[in-house]
Amino acid sequence: MALRAASRFICPSKIATPALTLRPLPVIARQSRLLSTTAVTRMAAPSNAAPFYQGEPEAPVVKTDIPGPQSKKEIEQLNEVFDTRALSLLTDYDKSFGNFIADRDGNLLLDVYAQIASIPVGYNNPALIKAAQSHEAINGLVNRPALGTFPPHDWAHILKTGILKVAPKGLNQVFTAMAGSDANETAYKAAFMWRRAHERGGHHVEFTEEELNSAMQNQAPGTSNLSILSFKTAFHGRLFGTLSTTRSKPIHKVDIPAFDWPQATFPQLKYPLEKHVEENRAAEQASLDEVEHLIKTYHNPPAAVIVEPIQSEGGDNHASPDFFRKLRALTRKHNVLLIVDEVQTGVGATGKFWAHEHWDLPEPPDMVTFSKKAQTAGYYFGNPELRPNKPYRQFNTWMGDPARAIIFRAIIEEIERLDLVAHTARVGNYLYGKLEALAAKYPGQFENLRGKDRGTFIAFDNPRRDEFLVRAKKFGINIGGSGKEAIRLRPMLTFQERHADLLVDALEKIVLSFKE
Amino acid sequence: MALRAASRFICPSKIATPALTLRPLPVIARQSRLLSTTAVTRMAAPSNAAPFYQGEPEAPVVKTDIPGPQSKKEIEQLNEVFDTRALSLLTDYDKSFGNFIADRDGNLLLDVYAQIASIPVGYNNPALIKAAQSHEAINGLVNRPALGTFPPHDWAHILKTGILKVAPKGLNQVFTAMAGSDANETAYKAAFMWRRAHERGGHHVEFTEEELNSAMQNQAPGTSNLSILSFKTAFHGRLFGTLSTTRSKPIHKVDIPAFDWPQATFPQLKYPLEKHVEENRAAEQASLDEVEHLIKTYHNPPAAVIVEPIQSEGGDNHASPDFFRKLRALTRKHNVLLIVDEVQTGVGATGKFWAHEHWDLPEPPDMVTFSKKAQTAGYYFGNPELRPNKPYRQFNTWMGDPARAIIFRAIIEEIERLDLVAHTARVGNYLYGKLEALAAKYPGQFENLRGKDRGTFIAFDNPRRDEFLVRAKKFGINIGGSGKEAIRLRPMLTFQERHADLLVDALEKIVLSFKE
Repeated sequence: MALRAASRFICPSKIATPALTLRPLPVIARQSRLLSTTAVTRMAAPSNAAPFYQGEPEAPVVKTDIPGPQSKKEIEQLNEVFDTRALSLLTDYDKSFGNFIADRDGNLLLDVYAQIASIPVGYNNPALIKAAQSHEAINGLVNRPALGTFPPHDWAHILKTGILKVAPKGLNQVFTAMAGSDANETAYKAAFMWRRAHERGGHHVEFTEEELNSAMQNQAPGTSNLSILSFKTAFHGRLFGTLSTTRSKPIHKVDIPAFDWPQATFPQLKYPLEKHVEENRAAEQASLDEVEHLIKTYHNPPAAVIVEPIQSEGGDNHASPDFFRKLRALTRKHNVLLIVDEVQTGVGATGKFWAHEHWDLPEPPDMVTFSKKAQTAGYYFGNPELRPNKPYRQFNTWMGDPARAIIFRAIIEEIERLDLVAHTARVGNYLYGKLEALAAKYPGQFENLRGKDRGTFIAFDNPRRDEFLVRAKKFGINIGGSGKEAIRLRPMLTFQERHADLLVDALEKIVLSFKE
Repeated sequence: MALRAASRFICPSKIATPALTLRPLPVIARQSRLLSTTAVTRMAAPSNAAPFYQGEPEAPVVKTDIPGPQSKKEIEQLNEVFDTRALSLLTDYDKSFGNFIADRDGNLLLDVYAQIASIPVGYNNPALIKAAQSHEAINGLVNRPALGTFPPHDWAHILKTGILKVAPKGLNQVFTAMAGSDANETAYKAAFMWRRAHERGGHHVEFTEEELNSAMQNQAPGTSNLSILSFKTAFHGRLFGTLSTTRSKPIHKVDIPAFDWPQATFPQLKYPLEKHVEENRAAEQASLDEVEHLIKTYHNPPAAVIVEPIQSEGGDNHASPDFFRKLRALTRKHNVLLIVDEVQTGVGATGKFWAHEHWDLPEPPDMVTFSKKAQTAGYYFGNPELRPNKPYRQFNTWMGDPARAIIFRAIIEEIERLDLVAHTARVGNYLYGKLEALAAKYPGQFENLRGKDRGTFIAFDNPRRDEFLVRAKKFGINIGGSGKEAIRLRPMLTFQERHADLLVDALEKIVLSFKE
């Protein structure tokens, strides 16, 4: 019954109020009756922080096994036409709201995975619904332009009030794309074209006939033997170019042809950081030395180094700001571009809009790629030389999607309105403190706790990780893993102290459940 | 003034009538005053076919040079943040309607390029606006799911009533994607995984440790040396895997690393076909022989052959149904998959929903890729073995976009409602007949006219192609090229006899203008 009420208040088509005037919505709390039907006891009471969205549920609801009977039936039907083996939750998005995700059996989970870190401001966010209903969004959906040749007359305006409004410092241009993987691949292409132009003596030097002819055969000299240097345990996507730089899991790569491109070891920091200062510094220096060695010697010379601020899919691996400053200096020294892959770290989750702002770089990266929470994708750049010497070299039919760019703009406005980046920094500290206490209380269960001062971008290791993730659902939590045994927290930017309380309480219950 | 009226009637946010009840809209014809302000004379009167959409303009309007003063100003502003060197028309989509595209200076062109062949049922189509305003579309835009792990509960329904409703015969499953290029790349990955499973002895055979470890180094045996065989002058996309199979223009490929994959010559048919029967048959056989030779001998063995039904970007190169039937037999014989790339040919433009229906194949292709007019993307398949042996092998965060899948469903409904595939076959024949007459009247100007019985998917060569395309705008036509000197017609499915009359009339004027 409570959930039926929920389905009513979040019907997007009925929300027509301005974004800033949120309708008071019925709170679907006091579900102790529902909760008492399962083994789950009442979750922690919400903290005293005012909720961002009236009507967001107070606590998770677990009514059935997950998947429950209705979900099982529908998953079977879906599986006839669409591979469901990676399915985690057959989701009822009509009944999902804010930080809570609903399934088809009346279960409502606190979502700290958020569509693999890609939902920024909550399900059925009223401001986003309003943006989706706007003339501009509908225009973008219905009249999908080939942005490179027939851009809408207001494309500059859409970019400047949206994607470019939050451009990283020093980068003032964008090449838009569809998703993180093609954003990275187009950045790679820009790097190759830039590097070859330098080798030729500049943008004005024409290609030779031999280059043009051999390129058509996929052969040198037209086809270059340049490479992209990435790090071990990195993830940059799963198309052929990006997959060649992805090094997180064999299952992503096995059987697929790949380029012979170099990889450097990413520093493997030991925790707690303050107890391993020298060791970690040495690991970072060894990594930088390896990068420099590969740049100087690899048989397919790197045109660029690509790096995630925090290796995400690969297990939430961090490095210090000092490491990244040195990496910037090193790439500059050798005339190699630095591409920072902010697909997962970008848009606020680390307590800065872009995670690389934590590094205090003396000069910006050459390119910064983005997607996920931006709901659109692309790469930022500043150097005009990163525009190829001729048109149509960096090009495709759609080059992105204005409808999605308009949603990103609404997300940015919502982040500004609620000051969600500073908020996330604050809530992240709150959550980290509680997890530290939990880690002290349950040795071995919250190992290598990491992400201090990185907003809610927090992770820890657990020896029974896979079972932990499955079991979390029984305790009302939707949570994801990364790497070999990490549990990664990827809540939305609207995650508040009260959600942190719910999460920490559930995490403790999960750990205790293993001891029963 | 007429155009101001136009901007009023096509405001999508104001259209709330059901899709089937089109509002009577003011016709913005009788613009002889506007036309007389330029060198353009009145275009041909519309044919007697009833227009699909009341209020669609009767004829193009050309008021200024293109780009005009307002466009020039705004292009300069856009260029500060976004590469505009490939820009053809800064478009005012609010003022575009049906088959007509508007710019910012009051010009309104008959659009037979249609966003590089990707607009199926006209700008600001009322049925699509209604779909974009629907609860489902807004839900898809606002609550963007990770389709592989958290699919919406109605995803099966959306697929079955949309993408899969029009699945090619014999193919009943789909892997959804973002655009044509990643649709093709994921099809390639499926082919590689399938082939390696066969080589290992089946889906049940586990990977060896050596395979898993070497894949992480981008080295054999885990990284395979398999290839995709494509044809010369083919276009399959511009990501790293697809670009390795694209062979249309050097400017797409130069400087970019590529896989050492084989290419076979595509038959280069001579026109008119009836005068070169034996020669063309021999060219097709030579091509098939080369394919077979490459399959048997290429040092990186092909797991699949990919082919466009009509090579589009490469210059509108056709081959006979017999050629494709033999290609199907040949690939089957050698246990190599056949991927048919219907990104540009699919969704009705050739007078069949899928162009490969023209071939009357005894068994379907293994995979068919789609995008463009579908406004979403993916590959169809039927063989369950094309699902990889484990989950997460074929995977990415979004795996498509439900909002776009819902738009495709509305497109399909509109195609069915107006019977647009049969319509396009009929109008295509009408247009082809008129072009044949034009070709006879102006020798050398409409060379190698091709696309007979292929709907409106028609092309011809012109010795001054590039200038022809530029000049077309002065005569009220937005038209595109392909290959070295082809002019390709890619009108929408809503292109009618009266539009064909306008087009043919303008084409004649363009040709005559060169003689002045």
